[in-house]
Amino acid sequence: MLSDALAALPVRPFAVMNAVGLVAFALVGATKAIREEFDLFGVTVVGLATAFAGGATRDLLVGRVPLVLRSFGEISLALIGVALAVGAYVVLDAADEHPATLVSDAIGLAAFATTGAIVATNAGVSGFGVITVATINAVGGGALADLLLGRQPFVLFDDFYASCAVIGGAAYWLSAGVGGHPRTAAAVCAGVTVCARLLAVSLDWHLPTAQRLGRRWRRR
Amino acid sequence: MLSDALAALPVRPFAVMNAVGLVAFALVGATKAIREEFDLFGVTVVGLATAFAGGATRDLLVGRVPLVLRSFGEISLALIGVALAVGAYVVLDAADEHPATLVSDAIGLAAFATTGAIVATNAGVSGFGVITVATINAVGGGALADLLLGRQPFVLFDDFYASCAVIGGAAYWLSAGVGGHPRTAAAVCAGVTVCARLLAVSLDWHLPTAQRLGRRWRRR
Amino acid sequence: MLSDALAALPVRPFAVMNAVGLVAFALVGATKAIREEFDLFGVTVVGLATAFAGGATRDLLVGRVPLVLRSFGEISLALIGVALAVGAYVVLDAADEHPATLVSDAIGLAAFATTGAIVATNAGVSGFGVITVATINAVGGGALADLLLGRQPFVLFDDFYASCAVIGGAAYWLSAGVGGHPRTAAAVCAGVTVCARLLAVSLDWHLPTAQRLGRRWRRR
Repeated sequence: MLSDALAALPVRPFAVMNAVGLVAFALVGATKAIREEFDLFGVTVVGLATAFAGGATRDLLVGRVPLVLRSFGEISLALIGVALAVGAYVVLDAADEHPATLVSDAIGLAAFATTGAIVATNAGVSGFGVITVATINAVGGGALADLLLGRQPFVLFDDFYASCAVIGGAAYWLSAGVGGHPRTAAAVCAGVTVCARLLAVSLDWHLPTAQRLGRRWRRR
Repeated sequence: MLSDALAALPVRPFAVMNAVGLVAFALVGATKAIREEFDLFGVTVVGLATAFAGGATRDLLVGRVPLVLRSFGEISLALIGVALAVGAYVVLDAADEHPATLVSDAIGLAAFATTGAIVATNAGVSGFGVITVATINAVGGGALADLLLGRQPFVLFDDFYASCAVIGGAAYWLSAGVGGHPRTAAAVCAGVTVCARLLAVSLDWHLPTAQRLGRRWRRR
Repeated sequence: MLSDALAALPVRPFAVMNAVGLVAFALVGATKAIREEFDLFGVTVVGLATAFAGGATRDLLVGRVPLVLRSFGEISLALIGVALAVGAYVVLDAADEHPATLVSDAIGLAAFATTGAIVATNAGVSGFGVITVATINAVGGGALADLLLGRQPFVLFDDFYASCAVIGGAAYWLSAGVGGHPRTAAAVCAGVTVCARLLAVSLDWHLPTAQRLGRRWRRR
């Protein structure tokens, strides 16, 4: 069984997901800042902010001192992501258009939705709380990066971005609710989120606006 | 006596004010997002953020896990506000210009200034702390909504908006300071805030700018 | 020895640095808001937000109720800074171009980097944590002020602004790490930060962008 195989793995889902998310989101954030011609300090700050804002908010919401302040590993991982972004830009000259950035973002989104769901579940919040913390953990970094870059947060406009984290958080909560092992719930959450995001991008999914609903209503 | 009548009511002022504020502010935030042609997910997020940002900040400031993460009722009330906004838009087609939105905003402002003052007083902060937490609780949601929509927060420009919450918070603190029952203090705070706001809108009150003071000074 | 002289002074470094930072940053924030023709309430709010945002974030990060909510002195000091800004504008008519504003900002930056390093060290976070909290304490107010004014935070563009706080925080951590008295570490941190900032402004220091690194790389 997949479930048994996962439960037997010698890794903690939080540590794995957290490391993956930090590298992926630092890379995405730094790439955005490079495109805006920030200097290397600004690029590093936007990369670190993208990597840490979601998790720090998650920790504050459940009443913990943010993990990033308590460990050296967190910053090191994020600096690797920033270095990858700078290296890719210097060598390739067009990293910000690369599909790798899009995939990296989807992976970060899924990894952080999962860490958020794990921490929230351990903190004993309600089901809505689990979904909210998972979503904030997943999209907080991207939203702060956009605010720092002086743009409207794309998480509000990209139809299926935050929605994917909501779906993933709900999947974690359901999976844990029916008695699934935390490791299974983590795998389900990450898998559902990353698949939903990549499908949404490939198939160009859209949600309706109130304007569209209104036109449809009045046309009747 | 009004004071005795209020003290005898079988309701807790926090629960009432909180419910009123959540519905009112979710409606206002969702209406703003509809006007910007966000999709329904974005409308819901801006509505929820407007309803919860102030209270979550208040809870973090006094060292509590935000109420919204601990209960199901909070989200349900805010979703009612979002549904009202979408329904009003679909049926009326011009809800964002409607005076009802303005009144709803004034009511939310008063309700959240009151919940902020109650929580801060219970947390034992200073008098300035009570006024600050009441004001942040009242205007935090609107300010975040504007940042999410990529605008300068109107709470800084609208002359008598945040000022009304400051006055209301001071009224709560004075009322509790002279030995008033918490329920009386809550009624005073909510009444003062909503009256100040509606008067400011109707009579077009303004505060002077430093430029105006400077011209007046140099004219002497 | 300087170190012994400092250790003998009858003042607590946190209280001094905090007071200096509050007045300096409230003055800078209020001056920015006056230039944007905000009314006096908006000017006060931006001044207070600039003075308090960094410290409140610092306190939340290490799990304390923000100091500003617990004392009357904090607000009084910040209001002095706001009053100085309004007075300077009304009398001088061009305070926002004045070098005094720039020096006030450098002093506030150094003072708040120091309070951040002190609080973080006392909270027992990691070395990266000390530098991060010092930097957030120092630049958080300026960044929030810019967001409230609807601009991109200048701390990301001004090449040697946040970098100075990073250097100062590292100096505090090193100084405390080699066994220096907290008062010596505080003096070192404040001195290094303010000198780095004033030198950066006078000599127009710059950090390279990824674009420049890329051009240099491809030119080889």
